[in-house]
Amino acid sequence: MGESYVYEVQLRWSDEDRMGHLNNTRYLTFAEDARTRWFAMVPAYDGKTHASSIVARMEVDYIRQVRTADNDWLKVVNTVVGIGRSSVRLQQEIQRMNGEVVNRVIATQVNFDYDNNSSLPWSDTQRAWLTKFAHATPAVGDTVSAGKA
Amino acid sequence: MGESYVYEVQLRWSDEDRMGHLNNTRYLTFAEDARTRWFAMVPAYDGKTHASSIVARMEVDYIRQVRTADNDWLKVVNTVVGIGRSSVRLQQEIQRMNGEVVNRVIATQVNFDYDNNSSLPWSDTQRAWLTKFAHATPAVGDTVSAGKA
Amino acid sequence: MGESYVYEVQLRWSDEDRMGHLNNTRYLTFAEDARTRWFAMVPAYDGKTHASSIVARMEVDYIRQVRTADNDWLKVVNTVVGIGRSSVRLQQEIQRMNGEVVNRVIATQVNFDYDNNSSLPWSDTQRAWLTKFAHATPAVGDTVSAGKA
Amino acid sequence: MGESYVYEVQLRWSDEDRMGHLNNTRYLTFAEDARTRWFAMVPAYDGKTHASSIVARMEVDYIRQVRTADNDWLKVVNTVVGIGRSSVRLQQEIQRMNGEVVNRVIATQVNFDYDNNSSLPWSDTQRAWLTKFAHATPAVGDTVSAGKA
Repeated sequence: MGESYVYEVQLRWSDEDRMGHLNNTRYLTFAEDARTRWFAMVPAYDGKTHASSIVARMEVDYIRQVRTADNDWLKVVNTVVGIGRSSVRLQQEIQRMNGEVVNRVIATQVNFDYDNNSSLPWSDTQRAWLTKFAHATPAVGDTVSAGKA
Repeated sequence: MGESYVYEVQLRWSDEDRMGHLNNTRYLTFAEDARTRWFAMVPAYDGKTHASSIVARMEVDYIRQVRTADNDWLKVVNTVVGIGRSSVRLQQEIQRMNGEVVNRVIATQVNFDYDNNSSLPWSDTQRAWLTKFAHATPAVGDTVSAGKA
Repeated sequence: MGESYVYEVQLRWSDEDRMGHLNNTRYLTFAEDARTRWFAMVPAYDGKTHASSIVARMEVDYIRQVRTADNDWLKVVNTVVGIGRSSVRLQQEIQRMNGEVVNRVIATQVNFDYDNNSSLPWSDTQRAWLTKFAHATPAVGDTVSAGKA
Repeated sequence: MGESYVYEVQLRWSDEDRMGHLNNTRYLTFAEDARTRWFAMVPAYDGKTHASSIVARMEVDYIRQVRTADNDWLKVVNTVVGIGRSSVRLQQEIQRMNGEVVNRVIATQVNFDYDNNSSLPWSDTQRAWLTKFAHATPAVGDTVSAGKA
């Protein structure tokens, strides 16, 4: 049920840190690249040329370590796991090219009117667009509890 | 009551992204710098030279935007908000030098034995050390709900 | 005359800085990615599994500004412009996908024996390999004078 | 003879790459931080609020490897080694806090009029200011030859 947006990311030698695997911040960089491209497709609100948004919250689960020696590319699989009045929770599952999940980001983004410096409720058109990416079955990332370790 | 560990971070010109404020990944870089220094103080476990840990989860609340033009420095205030059998939840509040909170990271770290590739329960000594940084009153970050926007 | 090694680099949203074009350090990151892959192909020296090298010097000419809005990819075209007793000068021309040159890096790398912490003369086999990438005609980057502006 | 501008840079855990020393691009980040602050002091040209400049060329000599375990801070010592009609060559010597030189950057910056998209000759006031940072004796970095290895 529902669509997903997949963005493939090329790894760089310097994405690894001194521990010999991807630095913990890089997953957010990959998620940012996928998210900005996905948001650029959100239909414009009224007379605006495109929707603008700001990051309100990130939840990041580190599931597998990744080495660039073994992986030239990762992919970010984006689905919607929650739609608020003016916000959206986007699940960004980071996978190896074979589909193994290595990281899961839940990004809460707020639709934002930079001219008036305030949040902006989604229009019906925008809400309908976002809903296409919402899955009927509960997404795994939505039920992860914070203090699991 | 309890102690906190404060680490001050010097901002760099390139910490800002094209939106003209700190890139969303930078807060995790600042948190990493504070965390690695704090963890280096955890008492050694048995014969090990020092405790090792891996990141299991990050929750990041973006509260205020920060510009390097207005801020040369930020500080990271670290307290413990949860201690598990082999894990710790560290609240890393990022503040302007005047104390205004701009970002809040909750990092779940797992005490890890790299030799055996498995998690390692805290020793009593380690647990006592961690408890010094645990506050009796609920930390703000512990009760923030995910879908607040 | 001579071969070249071409490596294509995917740009990231955060490669731009607050000036709205690629940050000056990113060209060296792209050059690093191309160079590490090219060096991994250098034939092993004697009993070593592979050649090791260290960066001794970089000369970087900033020719065109690049925006990620206009470019998803850049390519790094690598040729040899000088071979010393234990060093190589690698020209790394950074181009848009249509071939327009936007940046030129000349990297001087030294063949290095980490076991003995000293430079290592190229073997005949290695020198022959490097020479394949050396052009008979003077490379443009080799004659750029430092104080041109 | 002449003045120098010194800027101290706090190192970050993630400045090291997988080789266990500072990544080669970081020196340019440190140089950038020092340079932007130094340029902000250049007297305004005519009616402009401040001088603008663009990077034309960087020459970077890697002299010593640096580990963050041994160094919390580095300093960037800036002097002028050349003044052109509309450009300046700034030597940015990166030193440990005890004065040991670990890296030397020569940055060629062009005074730039973004409104007209063209270079801008220095005014007499600006030239006089720049000259204060020019040393009478030849700077070491000015005589380093490219193919030294």
